Amino acid sequence: MATVTVTRRLHFNAAHRVFNPSLSDAENDATFGKCNNPNWHGHNYVLDVSVAGAIDARTGYVMDLSKLKELVERDVVSVVDHRNFNLDVPFMRDRIPTSENIVVAFWKILEPAIAPAKLVRLVLWETENNYVEYNGI
Amino acid sequence: MATVTVTRRLHFNAAHRVFNPSLSDAENDATFGKCNNPNWHGHNYVLDVSVAGAIDARTGYVMDLSKLKELVERDVVSVVDHRNFNLDVPFMRDRIPTSENIVVAFWKILEPAIAPAKLVRLVLWETENNYVEYNGI
Amino acid sequence: MATVTVTRRLHFNAAHRVFNPSLSDAENDATFGKCNNPNWHGHNYVLDVSVAGAIDARTGYVMDLSKLKELVERDVVSVVDHRNFNLDVPFMRDRIPTSENIVVAFWKILEPAIAPAKLVRLVLWETENNYVEYNGI
Amino acid sequence: MATVTVTRRLHFNAAHRVFNPSLSDAENDATFGKCNNPNWHGHNYVLDVSVAGAIDARTGYVMDLSKLKELVERDVVSVVDHRNFNLDVPFMRDRIPTSENIVVAFWKILEPAIAPAKLVRLVLWETENNYVEYNGI
Amino acid sequence: MATVTVTRRLHFNAAHRVFNPSLSDAENDATFGKCNNPNWHGHNYVLDVSVAGAIDARTGYVMDLSKLKELVERDVVSVVDHRNFNLDVPFMRDRIPTSENIVVAFWKILEPAIAPAKLVRLVLWETENNYVEYNGI
Amino acid sequence: MATVTVTRRLHFNAAHRVFNPSLSDAENDATFGKCNNPNWHGHNYVLDVSVAGAIDARTGYVMDLSKLKELVERDVVSVVDHRNFNLDVPFMRDRIPTSENIVVAFWKILEPAIAPAKLVRLVLWETENNYVEYNGI
Repeated sequence: MATVTVTRRLHFNAAHRVFNPSLSDAENDATFGKCNNPNWHGHNYVLDVSVAGAIDARTGYVMDLSKLKELVERDVVSVVDHRNFNLDVPFMRDRIPTSENIVVAFWKILEPAIAPAKLVRLVLWETENNYVEYNGI
Repeated sequence: MATVTVTRRLHFNAAHRVFNPSLSDAENDATFGKCNNPNWHGHNYVLDVSVAGAIDARTGYVMDLSKLKELVERDVVSVVDHRNFNLDVPFMRDRIPTSENIVVAFWKILEPAIAPAKLVRLVLWETENNYVEYNGI
Repeated sequence: MATVTVTRRLHFNAAHRVFNPSLSDAENDATFGKCNNPNWHGHNYVLDVSVAGAIDARTGYVMDLSKLKELVERDVVSVVDHRNFNLDVPFMRDRIPTSENIVVAFWKILEPAIAPAKLVRLVLWETENNYVEYNGI
Repeated sequence: MATVTVTRRLHFNAAHRVFNPSLSDAENDATFGKCNNPNWHGHNYVLDVSVAGAIDARTGYVMDLSKLKELVERDVVSVVDHRNFNLDVPFMRDRIPTSENIVVAFWKILEPAIAPAKLVRLVLWETENNYVEYNGI
Repeated sequence: MATVTVTRRLHFNAAHRVFNPSLSDAENDATFGKCNNPNWHGHNYVLDVSVAGAIDARTGYVMDLSKLKELVERDVVSVVDHRNFNLDVPFMRDRIPTSENIVVAFWKILEPAIAPAKLVRLVLWETENNYVEYNGI
Repeated sequence: MATVTVTRRLHFNAAHRVFNPSLSDAENDATFGKCNNPNWHGHNYVLDVSVAGAIDARTGYVMDLSKLKELVERDVVSVVDHRNFNLDVPFMRDRIPTSENIVVAFWKILEPAIAPAKLVRLVLWETENNYVEYNGI
């Protein structure tokens, strides 16, 4: 029985400031540079959500990607799109909004939401030159 | 001895209708939505074919990618390019032409054709926002 | 008073067969090659809709691009997406569905729909390697 | 004497809030929707700067693009990158930070800075699906 | 009678050294920097060839893009692909191989070759961040 | 403790000739075709460098990507950018400069340079249609 991985790409825009409130201003500047701008900056994020499984003989699908899209939009994209990761997003409270922390937070929301289908990988692009990926391990 | 994976990207255009002939019209509409249009729709597909192996000391190649390209064009792309997956493609007969089923069918053709080189991954993009991947397992 | 051009990109998928019903099969094959497949093929089309004008001091916009998007989706994209240009699209009846004819047909619909804002350019990509543009002249 | 147009693409990230402070909250919501989030959102902007002229026989260049890049980085990109268009950018004070207003403000800075070379076009992408262009007229 | 512009994109790879043999080494270094490496460097070039005209009622085409592609491959791409612009390309002899000089040289070859169809624009990308365009004027 | 993979994409341009000096001219032509042009050709290479690890609670980073970028630019990109792989790059001496051999050579340099952070994958794109990847095994 073949196992195929299917991926849906989604887009959102958000603002953030990358800093650690427990550090001094000087430490934050030294650690985060221009990403520490107190007035925020932002990105066009790209999120790839991958689900793996057997192909359903009735539909030819591992999972209906339009349903996967709706689910990710409802639980994640609608919460972060055109928002500020530091101020507006409950599940990022008390976390530094780096792509690493964002992708792990997305996983914790999406894995149970997608079950029983099996989430196997999230890739989050912050710019066209950097991205992070997480597979739940 | 290093194992390197090399990938060749190919492009083709095709039409399809995603539906299950054993379902009623109402079930097909509920399951496949606009992808069930009886007059077909189509895509610019992108196919990434990946082969892994040791580097040949004589050529510096894992596999000559121009030969890999010719082989994939001969056995797969020439059969599906500017064709209808439901009507024109023998190896998709009696299969719902979802990307999942297409990528597995491609694998069955390409794996023996590429041997003794080792096919390790196929990625098939249907649109710029969704793709499937298969590694033969 | 500065004149700025603003563009919204939209995507749709469709099937077509490029042939002239008044020609013989042999003539169609000679003229259109594989694009003449009687069982259709298809594309992921990309459409760029450009509107030019002065910047509205109240909004900072030439035209609200979310309204432009809604209008183009309503009058054009919803009519052609996941459809067959030869069989399903009333405004392409009796026209060969080349990108040239499609873009001119889109113009005739969109120019009055967008007025009094001024449509100045349509670009239609059929594949990542070919596109057409039209400015109403 | 041939006139050639040469273009350098640059990238920057910024936050903004699209709203008109002279409007009520309800009017801003109705006009700008989610772009009016008071806690900001942001984008990965792409800027194409085009200069036209004759080819210098000594260099084969219309303008040295590495010098053009340095100039645009010094006068524009370094002022807006990882900043907030509403709070941090002097030349956007009292302007709604739409792409239209941003591109015209960039032109006013860049045209004299680039002279005697002739700036002929600025294109500013806010997302991969929308962009604005301005040619100084 | 509508005038539509149609474009075919082609790709090629080439090596070059950007320097002026009538200058001293020091002048070449000051003028061209790392592009003056005497051992060459290279690029994946992208070329967009645009032809404008009325739509032929018999074909729905301004010009058959597969014929345009063949013509450009025969007269330009096959001459420069996997070649060295300074050493291998007859029509670049005694010209500094900047993108500006290359695009004008391409025009001189392609305009008569494409006639009576009307070449209206060439765009040549040297990297994903810089390109030149020429319209024959 | 989540393990996240972070990737930085870098760009460089270089020339090369793919041939084996121990083969005859006829054998090199038969094996490498146009890639064997004795006057070189070149590419815009894209390099993705991936590091995996736990998220540092103080920074929210697996590894500061601006530091990763600096390191890769210093040890690899500055050595190959605008250079000739056959003539200018010490670590490619006596190796056929295929992407396979280049990516393994990059690994040998970058793995110790990045330690104690853990390099887990290099992907090297030679053109937009072919790329190689290596994970150190």
